[in-house]
Amino acid sequence: MDAAEFRRRGKEMVDYVVYPDVEPGYLRSLIPEEAPLEAESYEDVVKDIERVIMPGVTHWHSPYFYAYFPTAHSFPAMLADMLCGAIGCIGFSWAASPACTELETVMLDWLGKMLKLPEDFLAGTEGSGGGVIQGTASEATLIALLAARSKIIKLIQTDHPDRSETDIISKLVAYSSDQAHSSVERAGLIGGVRMKKIPTDSKFSVRGAALQKVLEEDRAAGLIPFFFCATLGTTPSCAFDCITELGPICNAEKIWMHIDAAYAGSAFICPEFRPLLNGIEFADSFNFNPHKWLLVNFDCSAMWVKKRSDIIGAFKIEPLYLKHDHQESGNQSHWQIPLGRRFRSLKMWFVFRMYGLKGLQAYIRKHVGLAKEFESLVKADQRFEISADVVLGLVCFRLKGSNELNEILLKRINSARKIHLVPCQLAGKFVLRFAVCARTTESRHVREAWSHISHLASELLQELRH
Amino acid sequence: MDAAEFRRRGKEMVDYVVYPDVEPGYLRSLIPEEAPLEAESYEDVVKDIERVIMPGVTHWHSPYFYAYFPTAHSFPAMLADMLCGAIGCIGFSWAASPACTELETVMLDWLGKMLKLPEDFLAGTEGSGGGVIQGTASEATLIALLAARSKIIKLIQTDHPDRSETDIISKLVAYSSDQAHSSVERAGLIGGVRMKKIPTDSKFSVRGAALQKVLEEDRAAGLIPFFFCATLGTTPSCAFDCITELGPICNAEKIWMHIDAAYAGSAFICPEFRPLLNGIEFADSFNFNPHKWLLVNFDCSAMWVKKRSDIIGAFKIEPLYLKHDHQESGNQSHWQIPLGRRFRSLKMWFVFRMYGLKGLQAYIRKHVGLAKEFESLVKADQRFEISADVVLGLVCFRLKGSNELNEILLKRINSARKIHLVPCQLAGKFVLRFAVCARTTESRHVREAWSHISHLASELLQELRH
Repeated sequence: MDAAEFRRRGKEMVDYVVYPDVEPGYLRSLIPEEAPLEAESYEDVVKDIERVIMPGVTHWHSPYFYAYFPTAHSFPAMLADMLCGAIGCIGFSWAASPACTELETVMLDWLGKMLKLPEDFLAGTEGSGGGVIQGTASEATLIALLAARSKIIKLIQTDHPDRSETDIISKLVAYSSDQAHSSVERAGLIGGVRMKKIPTDSKFSVRGAALQKVLEEDRAAGLIPFFFCATLGTTPSCAFDCITELGPICNAEKIWMHIDAAYAGSAFICPEFRPLLNGIEFADSFNFNPHKWLLVNFDCSAMWVKKRSDIIGAFKIEPLYLKHDHQESGNQSHWQIPLGRRFRSLKMWFVFRMYGLKGLQAYIRKHVGLAKEFESLVKADQRFEISADVVLGLVCFRLKGSNELNEILLKRINSARKIHLVPCQLAGKFVLRFAVCARTTESRHVREAWSHISHLASELLQELRH
Repeated sequence: MDAAEFRRRGKEMVDYVVYPDVEPGYLRSLIPEEAPLEAESYEDVVKDIERVIMPGVTHWHSPYFYAYFPTAHSFPAMLADMLCGAIGCIGFSWAASPACTELETVMLDWLGKMLKLPEDFLAGTEGSGGGVIQGTASEATLIALLAARSKIIKLIQTDHPDRSETDIISKLVAYSSDQAHSSVERAGLIGGVRMKKIPTDSKFSVRGAALQKVLEEDRAAGLIPFFFCATLGTTPSCAFDCITELGPICNAEKIWMHIDAAYAGSAFICPEFRPLLNGIEFADSFNFNPHKWLLVNFDCSAMWVKKRSDIIGAFKIEPLYLKHDHQESGNQSHWQIPLGRRFRSLKMWFVFRMYGLKGLQAYIRKHVGLAKEFESLVKADQRFEISADVVLGLVCFRLKGSNELNEILLKRINSARKIHLVPCQLAGKFVLRFAVCARTTESRHVREAWSHISHLASELLQELRH
């Protein structure tokens, strides 16, 4: 598939309906029950892409896709991924592919500088911090929680050598916002520790006082608070926990503060959005997904820590077949769950260079502008209300009225298959989420989407009046 | 990069030295300290691939690469991965991309049938088992251990509702071979459970009696055995745990048996190697890496379970923004650590069809044949000894004599950079591993590698005589 074909295919794709019209189990009957004995031709396989695959694809890169959050998609990233496949090295140690290990370290420094992260998150040549590419934010949260668990156990055992690991774990408690992503709760499940949700304020933001209150209760009950996962840009409404209040509390209480900015993080490369990251200096680890909004195709979730040794200490096991002459040279497999790793930093390198910082900033600003445009369309319609502050590329809105009314509206929007949205729940209310997603989304698509929603709402309200 | 260029580049690559001649930190000084402000041209980026990346790449696909185990590399898989990048969907629920969820289920059934897995590991239309693509075997082992942990906790709490989760976890004990991969030990660390290594016999294989003995001791000490990870094809020597003995013990003792066949699993598609998998009927979960030896590029680790509900029950958390009309339709994100997932089953589909089962079997047989050829070359040289049975594509060998002697030999082999090997330790002996890795390896490469090793050995032994 060369560039010209890429372009042609891309245009074809836009013409597909955004959400597929298939029922569960559609695919099995379209292909044989077993793999073929003899080799088939490439042409036969390609024919089946149209027949079997495309009818069942949800088109994340259609300008009519406004569900979830964006997933990145760019030509430079795809080319880099092809190179990654062609080189096909497995970077589980420095020796297994030096370029793979080293480009990743430097790219995470480049990106850290773009975000103006505090110096101690960068590796440089002598730093004790640094970055790593994880597959997803879920993995980053889990890794941070496990590193924090390992650190607190060591700390307690230093003072009380007789306390067993399992006894300590049974007292540990981790915290997150009640708006945090489901993967945070799952990290607690996997790590085998208690996880408590801190109630948020009217802006869906965790404030210092709310955390302080729970900490005091838990300490009084003999529990050991050890981890707080702050969210910058929650999934339901893109709300921001108040890390300038939370950070000093975590530092004073020796609680590991991890920041999950999976979606919003990309915006911090723009000076006007960087204040949203103020308080990062209090964090132990920070993560966001360039594969969401920074034009680097999935999977590329960037994670930084202030102390590499905290993470490496939690996981390092080195058998002879992985030892080599440059053993001391850092490799990122000690920072993650899988041992093997692809050469994913190539994607960052291609994208950062072929867009340039200015190009990336322009991309973020365009999406935020489109969200603001949608917000003003909603605001101009008295039947609707905005359900949360529009800070970046997400607009939460609903018809004034019952949850049921909004559930019906959403069902009709998605059944029409012209655009695709998903809902969320905010303070007990059923809310529609409009996330600007595709690279190709323009003002005319947003206006078209709004007029479609508005038309379906009119139909619905009229029916109800009769 | 079109097919012609792929071919040209591939041939160029073979001419690179297999192991790079760079020192740690080589890359940072070759590129700027920050990302560029303005966009650069594609030509500038491509130029830097040659200047910055290639000098630091370990060439896993050179026919002179015999280190670790193979990592798969094929033209159909690369094309499929390009399609995956172009579609760019994120399959975290059925609705997020039906084709992505469904093709994966069916491909794992295809592959399961190729391996002649027992029926209860297949999903079919009504089965309660099924397969999933994990990123790596490390993740599969961890997932199996976590599912087993969750299952035993529920089981115990059914009889003793007053026993706390942390109390139960503190008594749990998992087992593996003393030859098992480091990721198995790491799974125990992450899951916060005791992990014990069972001693192996003279063939580096765990036998039933050895497990039985430890189980009795541990039960007597009040511990709760819950998980055994058997290895088929260990990393040091490609040894096989005796699962026909171990399986019935695990079943009788209600211990989850997971089988890690990361490397060897691909060979089970050949009827002559399928007996190595006998005993699979006793397992709860099974995993191997098509991305090692079945021509499907990394990352594609295939995992099957008999009861999907065991795994799903351990991790499922479903917020509103992930709910959809076909909620009951299985999706694989509940079977893994990350939530997001690429459309990786496309790689399997392309490879299985464009090679056909016969083509894949021929590929496996060719590699085993090359290993046997190397084995007979070693055996014909009285100075050397074979250190473990050669069953598949790995030959473990050494100079008769001290460990130090063999360490020097390996150092000289790798310093010459003509071929690349890594060592292992077997029963206290330092051993050289010769793994047939590249798709392009032919008999002449193997003979050339042997004559090179033999020549370096002669030089070394002569020096020592003087």
